[in-house]
Order: sequence, then C-alpha cells, then structure tokens
Amino acid sequence: MTEHSRIARFFAPLAAGEAGSFGLHDDAAILSPPQGQSLVITTDSVIEGIHVLHHATPQQFAQKLVRRNMSDLAAMGATPWRYTLNLHTPHGLAEDWFAEFSATLAREQQHFSMVLVGGDSTSGASAIHTTLTCFGVIDDTPLRRNGAAAGEDIYVSGSLGGAAYALALLQQSTPSAHGTGDGIDPSLTALYHCPEPRLTLGKMLRGMATSALDISDGLLADMQQICDASHCGAVLMRDAIPLCLHLKNAALNAAQKYRLALSGGDDYELCFTAPAALRGRIAELASTLALPLTRIGHIAEGNGVRVLDENGNPLPVDHTGWAHQ
Amino acid sequence: MTEHSRIARFFAPLAAGEAGSFGLHDDAAILSPPQGQSLVITTDSVIEGIHVLHHATPQQFAQKLVRRNMSDLAAMGATPWRYTLNLHTPHGLAEDWFAEFSATLAREQQHFSMVLVGGDSTSGASAIHTTLTCFGVIDDTPLRRNGAAAGEDIYVSGSLGGAAYALALLQQSTPSAHGTGDGIDPSLTALYHCPEPRLTLGKMLRGMATSALDISDGLLADMQQICDASHCGAVLMRDAIPLCLHLKNAALNAAQKYRLALSGGDDYELCFTAPAALRGRIAELASTLALPLTRIGHIAEGNGVRVLDENGNPLPVDHTGWAHQ
Repeated sequence: MTEHSRIARFFAPLAAGEAGSFGLHDDAAILSPPQGQSLVITTDSVIEGIHVLHHATPQQFAQKLVRRNMSDLAAMGATPWRYTLNLHTPHGLAEDWFAEFSATLAREQQHFSMVLVGGDSTSGASAIHTTLTCFGVIDDTPLRRNGAAAGEDIYVSGSLGGAAYALALLQQSTPSAHGTGDGIDPSLTALYHCPEPRLTLGKMLRGMATSALDISDGLLADMQQICDASHCGAVLMRDAIPLCLHLKNAALNAAQKYRLALSGGDDYELCFTAPAALRGRIAELASTLALPLTRIGHIAEGNGVRVLDENGNPLPVDHTGWAHQ
Repeated sequence: MTEHSRIARFFAPLAAGEAGSFGLHDDAAILSPPQGQSLVITTDSVIEGIHVLHHATPQQFAQKLVRRNMSDLAAMGATPWRYTLNLHTPHGLAEDWFAEFSATLAREQQHFSMVLVGGDSTSGASAIHTTLTCFGVIDDTPLRRNGAAAGEDIYVSGSLGGAAYALALLQQSTPSAHGTGDGIDPSLTALYHCPEPRLTLGKMLRGMATSALDISDGLLADMQQICDASHCGAVLMRDAIPLCLHLKNAALNAAQKYRLALSGGDDYELCFTAPAALRGRIAELASTLALPLTRIGHIAEGNGVRVLDENGNPLPVDHTGWAHQ
C-alpha cells in the first residue's frame, strides 16, 4: 500500500468536515478561524517507548496523542477546533495498525469536536513517532501561568498519582501484556492510557483562576512552572493532596503513595490558583461539574515549592522534585 | 542541561517577535491572524537518515526542515508567518548541536519572515526527528492542484535533477564526508541540502496558474498528482525538461540524466499549468524574477503522464514513475 493510498483510505475521511483541508490532496490547508476568536496553538508528540509503552496498541497511541494535546488546550481555557497529524512509522507496519489508529482518531476527533486538516506521513522510521498540532479557539482571555499572587489558594482537579501507579504496574508486567495490561484493573490502566482532559473546567475557570496548567510532568515540577512564571513560591499540604482511589487502596506505604502523586506525571489534571474570596464559587463549580476541586495549599512569597507534613513541618524536596518522607 | 533550560537558552529567543508565543513559557500560543487574511497550514518532518543523510550537520537539518515547509507555502501562493517546532533527539546529543541548529533556525526564520510560537522537545528518541508546522497567510485565492484543463501548458521553474544528482554523489562518498560533502562541488550539494523555495513565484502565479505544486517526489510522480486532482492527463517533452547545469555537464548518458530529472525528488521547484494565452505574461514573469520558467509539455485528456522523446515517440514509463530510454 503506497503512502498516497494509505492517506486516501485511512486519513482523508477524517478531513471531510473542513472544506479547507482539500481532502488532504493539496500542499497545505486553508483555514479561516471563526469571526472574533483567537487561535490557540499547541503541539505534542507521542513516541513509542517514551510517551507510551513499547507494544502499545494503536488505540492507546491515538488516545494518548489526542488527549495530551487536548489537555494543553484545557489549561488555556480554549475549545478544540482543527488539527494536523505527523505519522512516522517503521517499514512493514501492518495495515491493521493504520486501520485501528485512524478509527480511534475518528472517534476521538468526534468526541472533542475537531477535524483533521493536514499532515505528513513517512515510512522508514526506527520507532513509531506521532505528533499532533492542535488549533483551539478562544473568544475570551486565556488562562495563563503567570498570574498567581501570594496568599492565593492552590487547587487541583480530580485525583493524582493514578497514571504513575498504573505505569509502574505495567512496567512490572510482561511486555506482551502492555497492550492489554492483563491482570491489572482496566479502570486503573485507563488513567495512564486514556487520560481525561479537563476542557470544560478550563473554560469555566476563565475569569476565576489567576494561573493554571495541566499536570503532565508531576505536581511538584509543574507547580514550579507556575512559581517561575508568576515570580512566587508555593506551599503544599501533603495530606491535602487527593490520591487516586486505586493508589489509596494500594499495598504501599504513605511515602510511596505521595511520591507517585507528587512526582508522577501523566495525570493531566488541572492545577490552578485563585483568590480565597472565590472558595464558594469554586466549590459550586466542583459540584456543577461533579469533579473534585481540592485546595492543596497556597501561594507564598519567594520562589520555590515547599511541601508540609501533617504537623506543618517541611518535607525535604530534592532537585528532581521528589519530596522525601 | 534540562529540557527547560535548553528551550529557554536556544529556542525562546526565536519566539521574541510574537507576544502570543508567551516566550514558550505557557501551554499553548495565542495567535490572531492579520485582518482579512486566511491561514495556510502545512507540516513536514525531517528525519535523520530519511530526509537528510546520517551525519547531516545541524545546519543541514534546520535548512532542509524550514525549506521543505516553505516550499509547500510557495506552492499555494502563501506568505510565511509563524511556525511551531517538534524536536526529538537521542539522549546525550551535544549542546553544540542545539546551538548550531537553533542558530540556523534563527537565520532561516529571519530570511523567511517567520516567528517560532511553540513546540515540544523530547530526549530519548532513537534518531533525530524534527517537524515544523508552518502558518502562512493569504489574502487571495490560493493556488491549487485541481484546476488544470486539456490544452493548457505545463511549466517548471528553475532546473531539475540537481538535488538527486547531489544525493547520488553524497551516497557514494564516505559517511564522514556527508556533512561537508568533501570533494563534491558545494554549489551542487547545496541543491540537496538547502533548496530554494519559490515563494515569490508562487505569489505571482496567483490568478495566472490553473494548478501548481512543488516538486518533492520527482516530476513524474508530482505531475501525476496534478492529473489526479484535475482529472486529466499530461504530455511531457523529455528534451524540453531543463536539466541542472551540474547534471548537464556530468559524465552520464542522457537516459541517466533524465532519470534523475524526471524521477529524482527534492528539487522543490514549482510545476504549474496555465492557458496558452498567458505565454507572454509568463515569459515576462521569468524575466522579472530572473528565474527560468520552462514550458515542458501540455495537459491532455485522459489520466496518465506520458513522456515523448525528441521524435515525438512515447517513452515507456513504469509504475515507479521512471521513464526508460
């Protein structure tokens, strides 16, 4: 199957919803963003063995790829709109792989109301490399990382540590089980394979949150990003951090659990700051969305992230962002 | 050097010209395309060992990456504006590599009037993978591939076969010479390493050319793309095809030379069609741009590309797009 016929068969149907994609037949796409809206542009890749496991299924590839990018749009408070795809695969990858990958993309783009408008496809890569560049739209002020101020509250959505815990269990399993995660609770592995981007939350936080980002590298490392951009410090109360239920029930000690929740990545929950005066509105928002929004600390003067134990004593945090018990 | 400090040092300076890039500090960029212009979006990758040679220098990487993408904008008649970069590198790649790569990008983006607005960067890839997604702007009807009609002339800009000839010589040289091309005329290897996107020509052809594309896969294969999109056939006069001067002077027979010109890729010249009534205006345009625009055949009824020899007899063309003597 040639590159051209593969594009025509598996990917051109995903471009049907945008006339300016020219059915992926031309050198470039022509887009006119909706009147009065700004474009929000983000790009992220998923590489075999780095962002997904070796032996990842095409479905896992496509879901992780789409959702990593959607989470960046969520963190800005933007609405998904269009996207391009770069697909680099080894020679001889089975046609079934492309069929399942594109079928998953079709479901994902419908779920997130996006349309494929272009891309490139190359055979002969040493590993599967996939990149999405996503175009969101926004008609309001975006959420940024640089508006946090001393005294404000710090929140996270959902719960943390689940994706890192799932990954640790998957890495202990046999490689052939990586695709299916045989023997591991599917509702746990889904947290790693198919994270839920907090798009509605991001949109609702515009005008309320003073800073926001999505937690991809781990809470401590990402919180440091807000501190750097906002020129402030942060104090987190370790025991306030909402642990994923699977992790809470795991046969691990507290230090191990909080290590995963503080330094494990891939949760794609939103971390944001807001003035204390908005606590009531944020509680209402949590109730409206049926999504926990947990206050885990406050913004401070200074420039680093500190973590306090149950007695209010600082826990040592090393340069990798790891808080020791 | 961490991923963050590498971005801050080498790539954030490239984003200084667009406030909506937020200095590459945020989750996404916010862009407002100029009033009354449409966005033209294209994306292409350059992978070590596929689109550039193993041992390619960082400068060769960056130039090929930018110019492949610029050529797609040229083929639509668009003007370059903004871009994102995905950079996946093996662990332990020297800091010098990033310094030279980003310095070349800086020169290229200035040359083409573009600004970096976002991207992603990953270490741990098995080979160097680079992707650009480029945003052009256009205030007029874009050039497309689907407007060619029987009886119209077919043109190519510049000359063909130079990039493929350079690649063939580079592949015969020792791998350690791939970077510098020791012993091969630098003005020849530049045709492969640093092609010239025909942006001004593309813009000037709007309203004149009925179809256009850039020659990346070889004249025969790309001409077939115009035929497929326009539902027509094409007749090329082999001896009218403008050979690169290096190739013309090479110690090869005519069949070998035309093989490189017809089926070699990477020339990034524009191939376009226009009504015979415009021959005078196209000759004027060639003179204005000091760029040869050579009439190499005509559009016909049917659906395939035929190549005629000096006596007007058809040369057999096989399924790989290769015309036999």
